[in-house]
Amino acid sequence: MKGYRKKRSSKSGLPPGTPVHIGEQKLETMSLTALTYSEHALQEIQTDRVEEVLSLATNPANKWITVQGIHHIEGLQQLCAAFGLHPLVVEDIVNTDQRPKIEDYEDYLFIVMKTVLWHDHVQSLMVEQISLIVGVNVVLCFLEGKDDPFVDLRKRLHSEKGRLRTMGSDYLAYAHIDTIVDQYFPLLEKLGDDIEQLEERLITQADQEALRTLHQFKREMILLRKAIWPLREVLSHMERGESTLIQSSTHIYLRDVYDHTIQLIETTETYRDMLAGMMDIYLTSLSNKLNETMKVLTVIATIFIPLTFIVGIYGMNFTFMPELEWPWGYPLVMGVMLILAIGMLWSFRNKHWI
Amino acid sequence: MKGYRKKRSSKSGLPPGTPVHIGEQKLETMSLTALTYSEHALQEIQTDRVEEVLSLATNPANKWITVQGIHHIEGLQQLCAAFGLHPLVVEDIVNTDQRPKIEDYEDYLFIVMKTVLWHDHVQSLMVEQISLIVGVNVVLCFLEGKDDPFVDLRKRLHSEKGRLRTMGSDYLAYAHIDTIVDQYFPLLEKLGDDIEQLEERLITQADQEALRTLHQFKREMILLRKAIWPLREVLSHMERGESTLIQSSTHIYLRDVYDHTIQLIETTETYRDMLAGMMDIYLTSLSNKLNETMKVLTVIATIFIPLTFIVGIYGMNFTFMPELEWPWGYPLVMGVMLILAIGMLWSFRNKHWI
Amino acid sequence: MKGYRKKRSSKSGLPPGTPVHIGEQKLETMSLTALTYSEHALQEIQTDRVEEVLSLATNPANKWITVQGIHHIEGLQQLCAAFGLHPLVVEDIVNTDQRPKIEDYEDYLFIVMKTVLWHDHVQSLMVEQISLIVGVNVVLCFLEGKDDPFVDLRKRLHSEKGRLRTMGSDYLAYAHIDTIVDQYFPLLEKLGDDIEQLEERLITQADQEALRTLHQFKREMILLRKAIWPLREVLSHMERGESTLIQSSTHIYLRDVYDHTIQLIETTETYRDMLAGMMDIYLTSLSNKLNETMKVLTVIATIFIPLTFIVGIYGMNFTFMPELEWPWGYPLVMGVMLILAIGMLWSFRNKHWI
Amino acid sequence: MKGYRKKRSSKSGLPPGTPVHIGEQKLETMSLTALTYSEHALQEIQTDRVEEVLSLATNPANKWITVQGIHHIEGLQQLCAAFGLHPLVVEDIVNTDQRPKIEDYEDYLFIVMKTVLWHDHVQSLMVEQISLIVGVNVVLCFLEGKDDPFVDLRKRLHSEKGRLRTMGSDYLAYAHIDTIVDQYFPLLEKLGDDIEQLEERLITQADQEALRTLHQFKREMILLRKAIWPLREVLSHMERGESTLIQSSTHIYLRDVYDHTIQLIETTETYRDMLAGMMDIYLTSLSNKLNETMKVLTVIATIFIPLTFIVGIYGMNFTFMPELEWPWGYPLVMGVMLILAIGMLWSFRNKHWI
Amino acid sequence: MKGYRKKRSSKSGLPPGTPVHIGEQKLETMSLTALTYSEHALQEIQTDRVEEVLSLATNPANKWITVQGIHHIEGLQQLCAAFGLHPLVVEDIVNTDQRPKIEDYEDYLFIVMKTVLWHDHVQSLMVEQISLIVGVNVVLCFLEGKDDPFVDLRKRLHSEKGRLRTMGSDYLAYAHIDTIVDQYFPLLEKLGDDIEQLEERLITQADQEALRTLHQFKREMILLRKAIWPLREVLSHMERGESTLIQSSTHIYLRDVYDHTIQLIETTETYRDMLAGMMDIYLTSLSNKLNETMKVLTVIATIFIPLTFIVGIYGMNFTFMPELEWPWGYPLVMGVMLILAIGMLWSFRNKHWI
Repeated sequence: MKGYRKKRSSKSGLPPGTPVHIGEQKLETMSLTALTYSEHALQEIQTDRVEEVLSLATNPANKWITVQGIHHIEGLQQLCAAFGLHPLVVEDIVNTDQRPKIEDYEDYLFIVMKTVLWHDHVQSLMVEQISLIVGVNVVLCFLEGKDDPFVDLRKRLHSEKGRLRTMGSDYLAYAHIDTIVDQYFPLLEKLGDDIEQLEERLITQADQEALRTLHQFKREMILLRKAIWPLREVLSHMERGESTLIQSSTHIYLRDVYDHTIQLIETTETYRDMLAGMMDIYLTSLSNKLNETMKVLTVIATIFIPLTFIVGIYGMNFTFMPELEWPWGYPLVMGVMLILAIGMLWSFRNKHWI
Repeated sequence: MKGYRKKRSSKSGLPPGTPVHIGEQKLETMSLTALTYSEHALQEIQTDRVEEVLSLATNPANKWITVQGIHHIEGLQQLCAAFGLHPLVVEDIVNTDQRPKIEDYEDYLFIVMKTVLWHDHVQSLMVEQISLIVGVNVVLCFLEGKDDPFVDLRKRLHSEKGRLRTMGSDYLAYAHIDTIVDQYFPLLEKLGDDIEQLEERLITQADQEALRTLHQFKREMILLRKAIWPLREVLSHMERGESTLIQSSTHIYLRDVYDHTIQLIETTETYRDMLAGMMDIYLTSLSNKLNETMKVLTVIATIFIPLTFIVGIYGMNFTFMPELEWPWGYPLVMGVMLILAIGMLWSFRNKHWI
Repeated sequence: MKGYRKKRSSKSGLPPGTPVHIGEQKLETMSLTALTYSEHALQEIQTDRVEEVLSLATNPANKWITVQGIHHIEGLQQLCAAFGLHPLVVEDIVNTDQRPKIEDYEDYLFIVMKTVLWHDHVQSLMVEQISLIVGVNVVLCFLEGKDDPFVDLRKRLHSEKGRLRTMGSDYLAYAHIDTIVDQYFPLLEKLGDDIEQLEERLITQADQEALRTLHQFKREMILLRKAIWPLREVLSHMERGESTLIQSSTHIYLRDVYDHTIQLIETTETYRDMLAGMMDIYLTSLSNKLNETMKVLTVIATIFIPLTFIVGIYGMNFTFMPELEWPWGYPLVMGVMLILAIGMLWSFRNKHWI
Repeated sequence: MKGYRKKRSSKSGLPPGTPVHIGEQKLETMSLTALTYSEHALQEIQTDRVEEVLSLATNPANKWITVQGIHHIEGLQQLCAAFGLHPLVVEDIVNTDQRPKIEDYEDYLFIVMKTVLWHDHVQSLMVEQISLIVGVNVVLCFLEGKDDPFVDLRKRLHSEKGRLRTMGSDYLAYAHIDTIVDQYFPLLEKLGDDIEQLEERLITQADQEALRTLHQFKREMILLRKAIWPLREVLSHMERGESTLIQSSTHIYLRDVYDHTIQLIETTETYRDMLAGMMDIYLTSLSNKLNETMKVLTVIATIFIPLTFIVGIYGMNFTFMPELEWPWGYPLVMGVMLILAIGMLWSFRNKHWI
Repeated sequence: MKGYRKKRSSKSGLPPGTPVHIGEQKLETMSLTALTYSEHALQEIQTDRVEEVLSLATNPANKWITVQGIHHIEGLQQLCAAFGLHPLVVEDIVNTDQRPKIEDYEDYLFIVMKTVLWHDHVQSLMVEQISLIVGVNVVLCFLEGKDDPFVDLRKRLHSEKGRLRTMGSDYLAYAHIDTIVDQYFPLLEKLGDDIEQLEERLITQADQEALRTLHQFKREMILLRKAIWPLREVLSHMERGESTLIQSSTHIYLRDVYDHTIQLIETTETYRDMLAGMMDIYLTSLSNKLNETMKVLTVIATIFIPLTFIVGIYGMNFTFMPELEWPWGYPLVMGVMLILAIGMLWSFRNKHWI
């Protein structure tokens, strides 16, 4: 969230459509991977120079261009201009502070998604933005950094069998979305395991550290919700078939990934419910600990304060205290106190205090 | 939930429509029960070999095929291909991690439901997935394990009277759903009894164990909600009559089972309300226990601390303390303390502390 | 709720439309009251034998038949068959575990309602189910037991003036619903009074008993909600005028009773809000009591523990303690302690602790 | 709410349309104020006898009749019959227990509103009901008591300029509603001031009295919500222009007052949020007070209990206790205790306890 | 909120459409800035006299008039009359107590927005109202005080390039809204930073001051929600394209700013969630502190109360107490007590209390 709060305000006062890169710069240079493919042919270009792919814009073949490193604004603008994208789209691509959304520009669809990954070295979730442009026979995919979640997808496209080669850009776009949605499942599984572990721990040992972890999970759920919930709207918009860019044969696949999204949403909601319930457990556990402490104090005080009073009596210096002279006075008092102590212990046991 | 978290992630990176069995394998082999029936005839095939039923796909009679053991993916694929099912359907059948849903593939409806059963030997709820394919004159039913909830249904179909024989596959599908929905009622009755018992216990004895049981019930309610709520949507979709596969004479029955589903939903919501209220009772009960403990401590301390002070006075070693010489000094002090103690006890009784 | 949990599960496995009486049997025999009436004539039949009223089914006059004792399933089935009711309707009539609803069977409307009455001898609310069949010129009314809430309605029909005689079966059905809705008002008034009394008591004396009463009220509100809320839907369905059985002149009356239902719903919601607020009061009251207890303990301990320390000093047996020899030592120490005690009392008064 | 709970049940069993006055009787007699007006003429009749205004029903001029004292049922029935009102309308006018609503009877609109005023002499909010009948060229206004909120409106009508004279009965009705809505603003301003004062007080001094006031405010907000929320629906119904009685030129004014109503609703919601937040402050304030008390007790006990133990040691009567004979024994022990006490005080200061 | 509560009530009883300035007067005089522009020409008038701009009303060129200081009611009325605005619009412009809204008067749109700015010198948020009139070729903008958020916008219009000159008044209006929406981002970033700081502090040191700050943030979020949420409706109304004043080429820009508004709303909701979670942290932190205090008390009391009892025993004055005579009695007792103390400390350490 740091990136967001540091940079979004830098855009105030600029005219709309001015692309300003918002977020962390994750790559030195921009790197492009362009694939042109038909059912039986496929050509791949790997380059750092945007000029090499500009000519593809007028190539009638199916194209899939992946751009890594969106901070290189001039290059991006050149590319987007070549493919006829609206300046507002370019502005949104370089602003990594978008929420997932779909926008229909008639000639193309503009889709924004988020990947959320657990990074071990910082022990926290990292969010990256993925922007897709889906045109008639082109898919443009913009990534923030060098992590490319679509490596498997590219492999599938390279192999000649499989539906990817024969179907259009809408199916390729679907494959992108499906890949992103599938990436959330292992993440949620990991989170679910962590939550269950925390739950075990909360019941046995409710300390300040557990509360901090609980709070941390809550914030991660907020982050995940913001990434996952809007996907539902994106997919339901695509599935409703309002755009002519989506062929009817793809609808069935979109419904499938829509279904997965609903499942993700339900899982996050279940986790939220569980986390809320764990806060209750933590609170009752604090109350229980206080109760335990107070019982110890009360047992000790209730047994010894009266006894101390009794020994205090025989510590008085009155001249005329006949008991003091009795030979059996001392053992008698000790015996009485013993009986008293045992009686009290017995009554506490009855109350289930000890 | 274990099965889910262990296996769902294993699908990442595979192309859509690749069937991967997700969940626990509950049977050694696949077992099939195929019935072909008309108003006056019925034939049953029991087999482990999928080839024996493939020919039924082109048989114009009414067919009901039950498949037990969905982990046998090749067999399933053969069967589904014979009946013309979409690869995504096969993928969903073998993935036991679906939410209840209905999908309309025009030629057939694909329905996913969940049975939830209390298993005594593990002392917890077990969820199994049931997938239904409803075609023009065929119902395919896929079960995870060897438990078959539709035994009674098969008996009814064997007997020549009854509506099942004369009505189409849509009515048979309704009968499946009705059976599943009816199975929830005894489960909810059991849960309701358990919740009431817990409530009694919470009022009399609020210990950590009761909290754990309460928490367990909450999780079971979450699980039940996830199984029952989506059924509402499934049935309302069927009842709206958008599919030509559902005859209008069946609508009245679907409305009936829809009504039962609403009743299930309301009951689960009532239980959720009751469980939330019980958490409040638990918390107040903890507070009350603390109050009780503190009252005991306060009563004991308030009575004996001042008395101990008094006996301390006469334990001082001042040379000139005339009271010490008085013959009635000792009984006088004892009397004063007795009066003091009685007065305090009386004042505590007035405050309803003892 | 007992009846529900004991019996609903007994239906599992039966084919749909099998009438099984669910609930408590409240009458020995079935008793029927049949009225045929036109503007100037009225005839009443009181009988225990269902055969006597079967012929009415073909009588073109307006008919109103009240059936008391729905456990007599064969009689009911005969009657319902004579009037052409669907088996699912009969099943729902004898199952007293329905939620209020309306179902449109084109030839007739099937309406289920609940009466909720406070029974003094069991000190709890009792729910009974009332089923209405509204046909072209017939109203069938099915009651569980011998309590008949429609006695006044019958009197109004007996008197020749009044709208009841001249208007159709839809108006008579409206009159039934209006009677039921009106019955809720005194009940809610009683509950409101009880809630206000409890509120008074909670502020002055928050004990475990009050919590139990509060909890009891909450459960009664859940029960009332389940009886009242669905009425809204029933009436809005009738008022929307989708059924040809409801004449347009009756709509204005339905709107009126719909309005009363909204008022009932708002009142129950207000009570729910009040009960939730009372839980807060109870909790703060517990906190306040703990605070009071702790203040007493702290005041006593803070005054006497230091004093006991001082007298302890002069109880030491050191050979060289010059103060012990002073003639004014004892009164001096006593005076110092008095001043100390007064000072502390004064400081506690300043803190508003005593 | 008293009136409601005492009287609403008295209607049970009566046929619909029977007018029964529900609520408090606020006037001895009924008093009528009838104005007939055109652009340049205006005539006012002040009377207690309903017969004097009955003839106006057939007068084609614009009419505005205000009725004060709705308990006089016969008079009301005469008047309403003359203007052709439905018996259900009369029943609703005399039942002061309505919720704000609008009903369209085609020839006229029936509008119910509530005024809520703070009455200083009872220190609570008082609710009165205002019923409006809006016909083609007539507005009937029914008030409960002698308070007439429309005095200013009458003055504006008396003066020849202003829109009121030239526009129809719908504009006059709008003016009524606008007056009522405007009356809520000062009330909410007063409540807002009171709530802010309470908030200040809760932070400095959280006693039982403050809780009671907080609870009182919560109940007043419930009452206000019930009076204000339904107005939104009333106005949105009028503005949608479904009735031919509302001229299109009036819509713009209705939108304006609708806007004010939204503002009232938002303000009440803001107050509800603030009151909920104040409950939290109260609870934390109780916790803080308990913490403070316990700290005092702990500081006192922790300092003096060990010291008392030390002096107890030297109060033992062992024959062989060499320290007792030391000349510097007494001052040494006193010094050690002083150092101990200072050390503890210092450690408490470090923990910010004192 | 002060201004609101002091002044809104002053309007009661006035006829609708009477402009009364509600709010604080922020300027001495009214100041006007009028721009007339076409693609290649631009003329600016700066004046305090409204008469100088009245003639612009009939000028067919594009016009943008900014009015600062809305308390000058006569001037405003003159201006609004010249541009043909409805009296209700004038009333709303001078009433700074509006909620953000859009009203369609066919010839022009009336838009109300709020700017919320953090003012360092009062350490609180200040809300100002901005009213826009969007006509065919005119934009009127009314500001409360001398702060003009549209300075950059004017600069962009002065420069000949840029879309502003060539597009119509709807685009200029969009530019106004975009400026306002962009202003919220830095404010929310500041708030987010403050909230994170508070969170850090709450975990380490939960004092009354932190609670006050938390409460302050909650109120600021309420204020922001009231300013931001209605914008969504305003923009969705404009984007839906129901008004002919909005050209279709502007829709894409409105969708963009709508998107930003959704982002603002989501951020405020996230902050609300975080603040609610922080209240929980505060409460648990209070509980933890109480637990800590009680543990200290219990440890001290549990160790020393039994020891004091033991020394009390040997302070008794019985004649026959053989231990007192033992030469090793004293060191023996001291040793026993030492062992006891160490044992207790060890058991407390085992319970993780010290």
